[in-house]
Amino acid sequence: MVQSEALLLPLSLVGIVAASMTAALAAGRRSMDWVGVVLLGSVTALGGGSARDMMLGNYPLVWVHEPYLLAVTSVAALATIMLSPVIHRFRNLFLVLDAVGLVAFTIVGCDVALKGGQHPVIVIVAGMITGCVGGVLRDVLCNDVPLLFRSELYASVAVVTGLLYVIGLRIGFNPDLVSAVALTAGLAFRLLAIRYRWEMPKFVYERD
Amino acid sequence: MVQSEALLLPLSLVGIVAASMTAALAAGRRSMDWVGVVLLGSVTALGGGSARDMMLGNYPLVWVHEPYLLAVTSVAALATIMLSPVIHRFRNLFLVLDAVGLVAFTIVGCDVALKGGQHPVIVIVAGMITGCVGGVLRDVLCNDVPLLFRSELYASVAVVTGLLYVIGLRIGFNPDLVSAVALTAGLAFRLLAIRYRWEMPKFVYERD
Amino acid sequence: MVQSEALLLPLSLVGIVAASMTAALAAGRRSMDWVGVVLLGSVTALGGGSARDMMLGNYPLVWVHEPYLLAVTSVAALATIMLSPVIHRFRNLFLVLDAVGLVAFTIVGCDVALKGGQHPVIVIVAGMITGCVGGVLRDVLCNDVPLLFRSELYASVAVVTGLLYVIGLRIGFNPDLVSAVALTAGLAFRLLAIRYRWEMPKFVYERD
Repeated sequence: MVQSEALLLPLSLVGIVAASMTAALAAGRRSMDWVGVVLLGSVTALGGGSARDMMLGNYPLVWVHEPYLLAVTSVAALATIMLSPVIHRFRNLFLVLDAVGLVAFTIVGCDVALKGGQHPVIVIVAGMITGCVGGVLRDVLCNDVPLLFRSELYASVAVVTGLLYVIGLRIGFNPDLVSAVALTAGLAFRLLAIRYRWEMPKFVYERD
Repeated sequence: MVQSEALLLPLSLVGIVAASMTAALAAGRRSMDWVGVVLLGSVTALGGGSARDMMLGNYPLVWVHEPYLLAVTSVAALATIMLSPVIHRFRNLFLVLDAVGLVAFTIVGCDVALKGGQHPVIVIVAGMITGCVGGVLRDVLCNDVPLLFRSELYASVAVVTGLLYVIGLRIGFNPDLVSAVALTAGLAFRLLAIRYRWEMPKFVYERD
Repeated sequence: MVQSEALLLPLSLVGIVAASMTAALAAGRRSMDWVGVVLLGSVTALGGGSARDMMLGNYPLVWVHEPYLLAVTSVAALATIMLSPVIHRFRNLFLVLDAVGLVAFTIVGCDVALKGGQHPVIVIVAGMITGCVGGVLRDVLCNDVPLLFRSELYASVAVVTGLLYVIGLRIGFNPDLVSAVALTAGLAFRLLAIRYRWEMPKFVYERD
């Protein structure tokens, strides 16, 4: 991992907390019980990295190696229940933290694949899996078509972040600089996409 | 595996049969065909152990090493079709067998992780995954929000069983005694929870 | 892999393209965006082989080793969007290509497990997983009960193809001959099943 690890670890933790809390709210919308809230929060927050490592054959999984992460996701999910009467006031803060998580997860995922000596395409895919699969699991477990497939620039943000990161390192720029640029650009892209409701064109097919 | 393996293996088989049969009934409620019944039964009965081993990087998976288990799950699922006209009379028996399966799966799952030298928290999580993921796969494949997340003490029973088991072994009690106590306590907890409709508090969040 | 690999590779590519295109149409029926179309196509086309290898502990996954496959699935999915105004005219062609894919995937999956020294039952199951899991993932991500469980001879075709293949090799026939016979018989079975609407009997259970 590059030297910017010192920055990426706390940002990943922010992402883990934000992912667990948004999943807890999704659980609350379906009136799940407290155990369901904790499980859905933990699966959402840790599912992306787990999927990446299970696809790359990269063991142990992060939370198996660092079980304290399960405490982080559980506390974040339970705190969401306590905070639920006031949490809507922080909606914009959540959107920002979730975006920070997406971008940080993506770069961490790229790093893991880079250290494994993977092809650049797989490095970017590993970043995207890390950033996006948690939310897909959350939506499948809530019995929704995953938001990732329907709208919003989410996977696209991960791809752009990963591309900037991989190309920057390939060119030979300083890794810390590359991380910082990819993080900032990815975050700006995501927030602008939310602010201005950017969407990918949709494919509508109505025949049977 | 502790010496009580002589007891855990038959109890796990009971759990595998019960899980396949309840999944077959769920398949019948959605009018699946016979192949679907066998597939759903097998995935439900063997999915928990498979998920645990894929997360721990523990190969070969149990059913890959012991293919006869696929025959057990298939026969159990097909027998359910034959028995369906009278099976509702055995509803209470099923609830008991399913509870036996949950508790036995949990202890077996803890054992696998213990043998792998995992952290106590991961041991308990491995037990819970073994006991609970099969039912989650069944519900996702039936297009339901997993029952595990919605109500009933199911994951909680797995956690309590795992805790008793891990703490008992840590203290240094005889492994057979610890297994027996964890099994009995977990089973009693589950059956009392069903009988008296114990539920975890729910988190209801209605804002968008 | 047997010498008929020269035939199986192009047939598998046909299957990958057909799977990605049918998944893209399913995405279009749910008005997914272009990114969702590419993701759903890729997951469907490569999910069966990935599930097989993750269950067998067989790393690296095929697409991690051959990243060009991600380009194939992405281009196939995007081409489907372009071709959508006329694609219904080729409905029968798609059914044939999808059947070719199912049978080719099955034989490739059997081969992978055979090379890993697996039990014959696991060889057939590995073939079925390779042929069928992609469609299950597509249906789960589209929030449908998997078609595989509901009707049509699909898993059955994979099992028959795998059985012919494994038994033929066991008897000691020439591997190329065995591949050709299993391919042809599986394909004929699938096409006849579609043409004459063969179905497995259904299990209908209406009690709670």
